[in-house]
Amino acid sequence: MKSKIKFVAYVAASIDGRISESSHSKIDWTSEEDWNFLQKSLKKFDAVVVGSHTYKIAEKSLKKRNTIVFTSKVKKSKVSGSVTFLNPEHSNVRDLLRKNKYRRVAILGGPEVYNFFLKNNMLHELFVTIEPYIFTSGVPMFSGKKFEKYRFKLLSIKKLNGRGTILLRYKNAS
Amino acid sequence: MKSKIKFVAYVAASIDGRISESSHSKIDWTSEEDWNFLQKSLKKFDAVVVGSHTYKIAEKSLKKRNTIVFTSKVKKSKVSGSVTFLNPEHSNVRDLLRKNKYRRVAILGGPEVYNFFLKNNMLHELFVTIEPYIFTSGVPMFSGKKFEKYRFKLLSIKKLNGRGTILLRYKNAS
Repeated sequence: MKSKIKFVAYVAASIDGRISESSHSKIDWTSEEDWNFLQKSLKKFDAVVVGSHTYKIAEKSLKKRNTIVFTSKVKKSKVSGSVTFLNPEHSNVRDLLRKNKYRRVAILGGPEVYNFFLKNNMLHELFVTIEPYIFTSGVPMFSGKKFEKYRFKLLSIKKLNGRGTILLRYKNAS
Repeated sequence: MKSKIKFVAYVAASIDGRISESSHSKIDWTSEEDWNFLQKSLKKFDAVVVGSHTYKIAEKSLKKRNTIVFTSKVKKSKVSGSVTFLNPEHSNVRDLLRKNKYRRVAILGGPEVYNFFLKNNMLHELFVTIEPYIFTSGVPMFSGKKFEKYRFKLLSIKKLNGRGTILLRYKNAS
């Protein structure tokens, strides 16, 4: 019997749906409350998945975790400590997660990684933190090649602080 | 004494901050509750401002209102019934609004129009409706030429229906 893996994505964005200035920018603009929420949430996961840009930005904390890094720079998956570098075009992500007996996997971005899980029907829940800024430019939450219409269901809304940071919890309803 | 004009922007977006598939797409994916909220809200305004794409999509209802259409296709402003076509690069928008004694102006998009008002310090409040979809692609809420960090303050959150459409009200705090 194949065990079912639960995939949950965490995104912090501006009001206008931007997650950073560029793919190389540090995520230093989000609230302390969001950071604390994320760190606390990640305790409940067996592994996290990130793209190579996100990994570079947060390598120090990510290499202490079971981290899967999506990268086009490897063909076969490559393990370094608790970090696995994997090319999703050449390796089966689900098989790798199963082999490692990961049951709960957190998806931490960037946009191509979120998109990969969404389009492959591997995104069950989505936590979106909206920080009270408008950036007018920058990296979007998701970067799909074409327009899609994935339906979600709002499970809850929570105010994270008094300045207007909110946390939305959605369930994939597509 | 110069009278102060109040500018309020209304945006309906997906969870990932997209407002439509392309600039020519009809806005037929938003909820009835959001449509009703917008129509009711607009009763309190003297005029609305839209870009030329938005005008084309909603011409039938917009030409019954005092509508200012931003367009690069005119040099001097051109009046047709209650609709004024204006090139913001060649005309002073504030002067035109004052001349018409408009005190409350609603900004209805698209992204360049929202951006124009934000960067010219003419956006006091922002209502964002988030519909429970992810599009992964499409037109972003704001399209600035460079990354900015405009600060907002959340005034209220309201659930518009049982499917997870929410309405966020922000005040510009930049």
